[in-house]
Amino acid sequence: MGALKGRDLLSMADLTADEMQELLHLAAQLKSGAIDVKCQKILGLMFYKASTRTRVSFSVAMYQLGGQVLDLNPSVIQISRGEPIADTARVLERYLDILAIRTFEQADLETFASFAQIPIINALTDLEHPCQVLADLQTMQETFGTLAGTTLTYVGDGNNVAHSLMLGCALAGVNVRVAAPPEYQPLEAIVNQARMIAGERSEVMVTTDPILAVKGAQAVYTDVWASMGQEDLAASRIPIFQPYQVNEELMAHADKQAIVLHCLPAHRGEEITDGVIEGAQSRVWDQAENRMHAQKALLASLLGAA
Amino acid sequence: MGALKGRDLLSMADLTADEMQELLHLAAQLKSGAIDVKCQKILGLMFYKASTRTRVSFSVAMYQLGGQVLDLNPSVIQISRGEPIADTARVLERYLDILAIRTFEQADLETFASFAQIPIINALTDLEHPCQVLADLQTMQETFGTLAGTTLTYVGDGNNVAHSLMLGCALAGVNVRVAAPPEYQPLEAIVNQARMIAGERSEVMVTTDPILAVKGAQAVYTDVWASMGQEDLAASRIPIFQPYQVNEELMAHADKQAIVLHCLPAHRGEEITDGVIEGAQSRVWDQAENRMHAQKALLASLLGAA
Amino acid sequence: MGALKGRDLLSMADLTADEMQELLHLAAQLKSGAIDVKCQKILGLMFYKASTRTRVSFSVAMYQLGGQVLDLNPSVIQISRGEPIADTARVLERYLDILAIRTFEQADLETFASFAQIPIINALTDLEHPCQVLADLQTMQETFGTLAGTTLTYVGDGNNVAHSLMLGCALAGVNVRVAAPPEYQPLEAIVNQARMIAGERSEVMVTTDPILAVKGAQAVYTDVWASMGQEDLAASRIPIFQPYQVNEELMAHADKQAIVLHCLPAHRGEEITDGVIEGAQSRVWDQAENRMHAQKALLASLLGAA
Repeated sequence: MGALKGRDLLSMADLTADEMQELLHLAAQLKSGAIDVKCQKILGLMFYKASTRTRVSFSVAMYQLGGQVLDLNPSVIQISRGEPIADTARVLERYLDILAIRTFEQADLETFASFAQIPIINALTDLEHPCQVLADLQTMQETFGTLAGTTLTYVGDGNNVAHSLMLGCALAGVNVRVAAPPEYQPLEAIVNQARMIAGERSEVMVTTDPILAVKGAQAVYTDVWASMGQEDLAASRIPIFQPYQVNEELMAHADKQAIVLHCLPAHRGEEITDGVIEGAQSRVWDQAENRMHAQKALLASLLGAA
Repeated sequence: MGALKGRDLLSMADLTADEMQELLHLAAQLKSGAIDVKCQKILGLMFYKASTRTRVSFSVAMYQLGGQVLDLNPSVIQISRGEPIADTARVLERYLDILAIRTFEQADLETFASFAQIPIINALTDLEHPCQVLADLQTMQETFGTLAGTTLTYVGDGNNVAHSLMLGCALAGVNVRVAAPPEYQPLEAIVNQARMIAGERSEVMVTTDPILAVKGAQAVYTDVWASMGQEDLAASRIPIFQPYQVNEELMAHADKQAIVLHCLPAHRGEEITDGVIEGAQSRVWDQAENRMHAQKALLASLLGAA
Repeated sequence: MGALKGRDLLSMADLTADEMQELLHLAAQLKSGAIDVKCQKILGLMFYKASTRTRVSFSVAMYQLGGQVLDLNPSVIQISRGEPIADTARVLERYLDILAIRTFEQADLETFASFAQIPIINALTDLEHPCQVLADLQTMQETFGTLAGTTLTYVGDGNNVAHSLMLGCALAGVNVRVAAPPEYQPLEAIVNQARMIAGERSEVMVTTDPILAVKGAQAVYTDVWASMGQEDLAASRIPIFQPYQVNEELMAHADKQAIVLHCLPAHRGEEITDGVIEGAQSRVWDQAENRMHAQKALLASLLGAA
């Protein structure tokens, strides 16, 4: 993994196929206890949006590595006083060893990374959510033993999670299908990028038809219809997204062994039914746990400890 | 203490008399330095109300054990976005080793505990405050050398502290008396439960007469008249609670060696006079310190490290 | 450094000249890696104002010493419920090993220190900012190899930073000059105190003339024109402070080898030009980094670990 030392992870596509495979292998070994990595470094968490899973899973991962975590929420940092990103970046890189940022604009993340020499991790932007997708692929791999040739279908809003899933699946040789309403399709630039990465290895399908997309899939994945900061739009979106609900009827079209994934928090009765998320096919709690293992592998790799 | 490993502490009455005695013994040994326990685990603090003593004393206890602490205040956790308690519980148990919760409804705490396999600690609810009472009993024990047969009188609002004191004293064989205004008596269910636990060993008295309650007591205890979230009621309560002020006159009825306890913060001139809290009988700073020792013992026991 | 064990640092003038020199020497050794100090203690940070550099640099310093940090921001502490400073101090000293406080009134800091036996550090008050000045002098020393006989000029608001600079330079034998508008001169009491400390060793000049002050100086230092909490005054101050801008023209009067310092955040186009802060003479990022090293030396000394 020496190749990742000192690098950033701003987009899923910052990794090569081999690097992602090695990361997932390391995550699995850390989870099983086959190896134990120690790394007494300091992680900063700079989160401009609320977070349970990401903040807690990053913190626990770092603590288990023997490191420390500094919570830089924007209410207590000067950036709220209008300090330029470049200045904050150049100060924080003197104090911290690695920094995970949750923000809105991918461009702000990139600006930050261009000014800070320490590794910067995308802990969710409007464009991508690569740490989530590392955990998703780890969950697929531990379920099916392999990734190449499996099919993952994402049903719902063509958002940051959908984007990173398309790129991550393409890297892993997983067929990826996104079924979204016409107005909520993933960005064409990301779709094209995913198709470039996938090449001949795997399929990248984008459709408005959830049944077509789910047919024979090994994993069916959804996310809330209104992300953080869009809650006021939630009610108006319900009629548009209703046909994209992951319910028992839709699941009947998937592979019989298919698993259900959701990056949580879930809104039962909206994007997923209670029966499906609580049912035998649901892997959502394992998936949440894997956030910690995947991010531990990522931290250790970027810090050069594994 | 193996018996406590993996258990919850939601109510003082979750402990047997023997278990509480062992916890207090462990707390005393940790305080004196007779033993040193290490436990590199991760404690979550999920606090829906502000806290100085509880948050700081839990954090320091865990740090001194060699562990880590994750502060999950509700402004940064998804639960504020309406995630069901069951979901938050099932995610957090994958990341954390133990979790202390400060919330309003005892029922919410119980729901949380029923979904999370990790030990859950009541760090104050509207119904109980068992961690406070462990520290209170430790303070009694280090003052008098023994608990059985002593008398503790609580004067004021029959609140969560009063409830846990009644149960804790009953377990420890301490006679417990609560003097509260008619409208602010402790819950009858708790009084009955304390009497059941006390059996023949000790007395459980509830009265509206502070002088009767204090007569001959070895410890006189009070708390603010309006708890957190009730501050707007404080002024209207003053005339009702005035006869329950712990002042020099009331203290004259107690045992000459009696100590004064208060779980802080104190409102001088309301529930306690400056002369009493600053006087020679006051043990309030030792009592505050014992929060840390008692909770360290509790954490070590629930985590199976002691 | 045994002399500092258990002491407070409330004002720059709490140190003797020798003690400050030893602290700066220790800071340099910690930065170079010549020595490695470990100290598994617990630092509390009680900050009544926002902070990036101070909070992060203190936390990282303590983590690198092997210790822990407890963030006591006032929104979560009881003091906001009106608990007297004396009570909070007497509780926190039972839990923490050392405490850094950022507050408004120097008197509040002093009250706190008088009630708490643990070391208390001034992490910025309206009167002083000694931790900043330790880093500033470390930056001077690593640039010029020596402090005695150099000249530092502060241009701008005669605020807390200016005060601690005057005292710190006087202790270090650095000539110190402050150029500020008539209404924004440093407090006369501090100027006199600095002159007392400096004695014959070095000069303490206060003027309204920035060009006179900068002439031949080895370091030119500025700070924002409106400090935290004064942002609404910023616009009205601009015409008053305009002649005190640190720009290329003003820098031409300084020594050719002069360095530029700023305690950040910087408002480009106000107190400093973009060209100057980004120019070859700027040492502001090293200066920010030195916050961590200087404070690590301070923590280790006050805790008796170095």
